Amino acid sequence: MTRRTDRTPLHLNAFLMSVGHHEAAWRLPESPASGGTDLAHYAELARIAERGKLDSLFLADSPVLMGDPGRRPGSKLEPTVLLTALAAVTSRIGLIATASTSYNEPYNLARRFASVDHVSGGRAGWNIVTTAGADAARNFGLDDTPLHRDRYLRAAEFVEVATKLWDSWADDAVLADKELGVHARAERVRPIDHRGTYFRVDGPLNVQRSPQGYPLLVQAGSSEDGKDFAARYAEAVFTAQQTLEEAIAFSKDVKERAAGLGRDPGGIKILPGIVPVIGDTGAQARELDAELDRLIRPEYAKRQLARTLRIDPDALDLDAELPGEIPGEDEIEGAKSRYTLIVDLARRERLTVRQLIGRLGGGRGHRTFAGTAEQVADTIEHWYDAGAADGFNIMPAVLPSGLELFVDRVVPILQERGLFRTEYTGTTLREHYGLPRPANRIFDVVDSRAGHLGIALSGAR
Amino acid sequence: MTRRTDRTPLHLNAFLMSVGHHEAAWRLPESPASGGTDLAHYAELARIAERGKLDSLFLADSPVLMGDPGRRPGSKLEPTVLLTALAAVTSRIGLIATASTSYNEPYNLARRFASVDHVSGGRAGWNIVTTAGADAARNFGLDDTPLHRDRYLRAAEFVEVATKLWDSWADDAVLADKELGVHARAERVRPIDHRGTYFRVDGPLNVQRSPQGYPLLVQAGSSEDGKDFAARYAEAVFTAQQTLEEAIAFSKDVKERAAGLGRDPGGIKILPGIVPVIGDTGAQARELDAELDRLIRPEYAKRQLARTLRIDPDALDLDAELPGEIPGEDEIEGAKSRYTLIVDLARRERLTVRQLIGRLGGGRGHRTFAGTAEQVADTIEHWYDAGAADGFNIMPAVLPSGLELFVDRVVPILQERGLFRTEYTGTTLREHYGLPRPANRIFDVVDSRAGHLGIALSGAR
Repeated sequence: MTRRTDRTPLHLNAFLMSVGHHEAAWRLPESPASGGTDLAHYAELARIAERGKLDSLFLADSPVLMGDPGRRPGSKLEPTVLLTALAAVTSRIGLIATASTSYNEPYNLARRFASVDHVSGGRAGWNIVTTAGADAARNFGLDDTPLHRDRYLRAAEFVEVATKLWDSWADDAVLADKELGVHARAERVRPIDHRGTYFRVDGPLNVQRSPQGYPLLVQAGSSEDGKDFAARYAEAVFTAQQTLEEAIAFSKDVKERAAGLGRDPGGIKILPGIVPVIGDTGAQARELDAELDRLIRPEYAKRQLARTLRIDPDALDLDAELPGEIPGEDEIEGAKSRYTLIVDLARRERLTVRQLIGRLGGGRGHRTFAGTAEQVADTIEHWYDAGAADGFNIMPAVLPSGLELFVDRVVPILQERGLFRTEYTGTTLREHYGLPRPANRIFDVVDSRAGHLGIALSGAR
Repeated sequence: MTRRTDRTPLHLNAFLMSVGHHEAAWRLPESPASGGTDLAHYAELARIAERGKLDSLFLADSPVLMGDPGRRPGSKLEPTVLLTALAAVTSRIGLIATASTSYNEPYNLARRFASVDHVSGGRAGWNIVTTAGADAARNFGLDDTPLHRDRYLRAAEFVEVATKLWDSWADDAVLADKELGVHARAERVRPIDHRGTYFRVDGPLNVQRSPQGYPLLVQAGSSEDGKDFAARYAEAVFTAQQTLEEAIAFSKDVKERAAGLGRDPGGIKILPGIVPVIGDTGAQARELDAELDRLIRPEYAKRQLARTLRIDPDALDLDAELPGEIPGEDEIEGAKSRYTLIVDLARRERLTVRQLIGRLGGGRGHRTFAGTAEQVADTIEHWYDAGAADGFNIMPAVLPSGLELFVDRVVPILQERGLFRTEYTGTTLREHYGLPRPANRIFDVVDSRAGHLGIALSGAR
């Protein structure tokens, strides 16, 4: 195998999802009944991830109750609140929360993330999502989700406004000169006077610049618009890739787009999702995986699949392949990349609906890998060396046990192979990912178009 | 003095404001330089307040940088984030945060407060504000603040939506039946289908009902619209009252309005603000108060006063009274009650602008009381017995020292007199205030118009 020449340590993120990524994980005897709303459960997960020296933990989100409440734990704590609570029980691990650019105001959200960055001592990250789905739209006065393209245009302007607000205080603004009686220097705190298509925001923010300057900017959509957005703004990308070839192509694509915008491709870390199901033997791991699939109630899953594919549930036969006629990605307005991934997976592997449901129930389109700790470490190393990944988004099927097995069995192997840190060397999330603290585009960057990210500063000052 | 017959223990709230309520507190040698953004500082304040067995702590807020950043610490952590961080370092004290109904979406905010209530084990309170001021409006795409009346109409509908969302899960919705494979019972989780003037929200919320059902609902405006709003929705009211007579009249007014709406007047706790400046002797206390006033830079304060009064700063002479011609309350669209309070105070006591600035600098219109611990306890008892207050909003001029003095010297006197608890008897904020957990208006109340608050359930189900 060709070793990649830039063999920097890889990055590991723990994607925390209630009692596990497998939709039936909650039915196991070990799972706490109310995992989604139980702080003690999440605190335990955060401590395990930090014990493993993982770069970060991550919380997904959508402002809507997803699917049938009978199917799996649907009650979930709001991520910036939960993140703050987890900051209090950890000291080094990075903390990434999802928040929607479609259903928030930039002033409020910029302020919340700056605040989380302050209280956590520079450990905040923001997974920027545009939130697909009519159900979410109907919690915010709309009949249906805004058009895909509009959501991404709004997201880009949202990030522009947020970064300007984070830059509205110079790092040296607070003087606190008690003798003189001047707290902050007025000339080092400036309005942003943003006037755009979606937003008009005067600023300045009412929170001084935070330890990281900006939270780490993360993105997860893999549609064309999503990849362009990632290339421009993202510093880490969570992605669902089923095969090595697809993952290599995806990474190459996003990094080339970034280079095309004048960014350093090394400034974007690509982290495919992996659902590791770990056993003492491969057979034991596969048996756990199969046991979980048996616990799925197919009527829930079939209804959900039909919803995603925009077809009638009755058109799905559990023991047959997907029907021939389903809408193309072009006709879909939300979650395009997830839609395509599901259809491609089903067609490529000629899965029956029942088999497809099992695969999706495990990782919702992410790659499930059942094997020994050694085998999990091998596939991680293999993908990493092949340039398919700068790290991995670890999505244990069952929590906390799956995270515990990963941290206690897989991480030591990766450390032994020199692939992963044995101690934290930095204190901020950006330091863990080897990414710079962004310069202040309002006060410190002489050429305002040469900022840290592909964000041209327009309209400010 | 006539003792009030319902001598239930009084309630004490610690209003935490950076390094103190006096605008010049930050200039004292003891004050930390970056108090507004420093979690360790706030954590110390929370621990002191909890040591004193106070009912709650409270964070004010407006989504805007207030005034000149030179004048006092203007950088402040977002309150729901800070509250969550403080929940982690305390175990019993209630946690009240301000949030605006004008610049939030009900789905997002209902979810955040439900989440804070979950992570704190039932200690969350929401101070409902409508946010006056063109500066704040200009951070949210508006040219000026919405009309006073519109803000209150929106606020009422906002609270209606939020309470419906909190009721969208029955308390017994989560079954977590592993055998059957049913997590929550679909028939015990319902959309709210709200269709109103300001909001359309389908729901249900994606957080199950929280320990308190609703966070404690707090309100602070004292205009006519504000008092009507308090009478209908508030369970605790923070108010600025300079004299005993005004405070008695205010309390009577609000409670009568509530009774007129069919509510139990005992279900609304009135807490006037008091800025206690405590010394070993009265003279020492007055000297500390005067020292703080000398540290005010009058040019900052004069500019701020002119802004509030909507007049030219040059019209203000530091050593003369307020000019005769200033706008009436009717012409003011924001913070009406604060405006009137300032003008009334200046006219009643015939204060010069310099004196007025001193009084406002200390407590921004709240009542400053300089004296010994015994004298502070006396005035608290006096107001309480006279029916002017169900408790007090404690606003130390300097933090942490002023809170420490209050907790260590005044609280023991109040405890000795049987006026204040010596131990927490409940675990939730509602229990501290002696207020019931609200019934679920969607699932548990047979006559939906006879709910806990003056909230008629309309449009739902």
